[in-house]
Amino acid sequence: MKPIDAFSRLTQALKVLPNVGPKSAQRMAYQLLQHKRDGAEELLAALQQALLQVRHCQQCNTFCEGDLCHVCADETRAQTRLMIVHMPADVASMETANCHDGLYFVLMGQVNPAQGMDLSHIALEKLVARLQNSAVEEIIIATNFTAEGDATAYVLAELFKNLPYRVSRLARGMPLGGELEYVDAGTLAQAVYERRQLK
Amino acid sequence: MKPIDAFSRLTQALKVLPNVGPKSAQRMAYQLLQHKRDGAEELLAALQQALLQVRHCQQCNTFCEGDLCHVCADETRAQTRLMIVHMPADVASMETANCHDGLYFVLMGQVNPAQGMDLSHIALEKLVARLQNSAVEEIIIATNFTAEGDATAYVLAELFKNLPYRVSRLARGMPLGGELEYVDAGTLAQAVYERRQLK
Repeated sequence: MKPIDAFSRLTQALKVLPNVGPKSAQRMAYQLLQHKRDGAEELLAALQQALLQVRHCQQCNTFCEGDLCHVCADETRAQTRLMIVHMPADVASMETANCHDGLYFVLMGQVNPAQGMDLSHIALEKLVARLQNSAVEEIIIATNFTAEGDATAYVLAELFKNLPYRVSRLARGMPLGGELEYVDAGTLAQAVYERRQLK
Repeated sequence: MKPIDAFSRLTQALKVLPNVGPKSAQRMAYQLLQHKRDGAEELLAALQQALLQVRHCQQCNTFCEGDLCHVCADETRAQTRLMIVHMPADVASMETANCHDGLYFVLMGQVNPAQGMDLSHIALEKLVARLQNSAVEEIIIATNFTAEGDATAYVLAELFKNLPYRVSRLARGMPLGGELEYVDAGTLAQAVYERRQLK
């Protein structure tokens, strides 16, 4: 008998995916091999292609296959406004919301305050290089409103402290369609604290 | 620009996994390419090996690489008792519980009553072939206690109706450590209905 059979190896390997434990991994392996052979073949090919071809945009650090991603390559975008986000999915969300006409910088990580504010997970050096001799005038910090996102925003704010950029962070408050009864206390407190003057 | 880039292709391909929607797939692709390159390489290799090597046990239909799985190859198992389950994970659970010393048959699917009781998803023909000229005397139906599991159990019970096997199904009732206050009404009703005589 071999030390580990192919099915167990696949189950083990699937646990690399976020939020996939032993039970889900076992179910995934079963689905792939029994009911989704075509999908499994496509996943194999896609993973192979991605591992070979996906690189980082030289300017904004997001995933892309050429030197520049399609946002950075788009000359109609406002070159003076730079939005800093955590990961490529955030760029996609922002583009769907269609509310930012500038460029992005993708940190590809967050600072984790529970693990000692290690800065090696975020592409700070690449960000500094990006800003050198650039047309950027305004920086919008669009990290998450979590402990990690707050810590990352703090690090960025410190970095820009003595630099001549206008720096802002996304507003906090009630979500659209939010009802006071159901929103969490922290959000509610923030909404009151940062209340908007009407007259 | 290509019709679909490698990152989007991987995100699309990951949606073949059960319970993975667009958002999770995007996050998985990001994790694989940014933070878990080694894990992604291992997943690639494991998937490739599994797609090539994993076959079905000729006797019990579970996944294995040779002709017989390790349970069927074990001659100390009771050849007269056959437990019928839905998928390989169920065999693993049963073996962990260590309460069945016989053999298994894995249906590799369930009958779905909501989709017209299509029998093509379960390995009925292979089961009939398995039973021909076998030493099996007792059959334990160990399908799930869901609509699909109940329907599958019904199909099996019908199949064995006029055949000379002792046939049973797993008991229903309160789970170990279950408290009446928290158990669902259906389970409670079943536990009362199938109550065990003590004296």
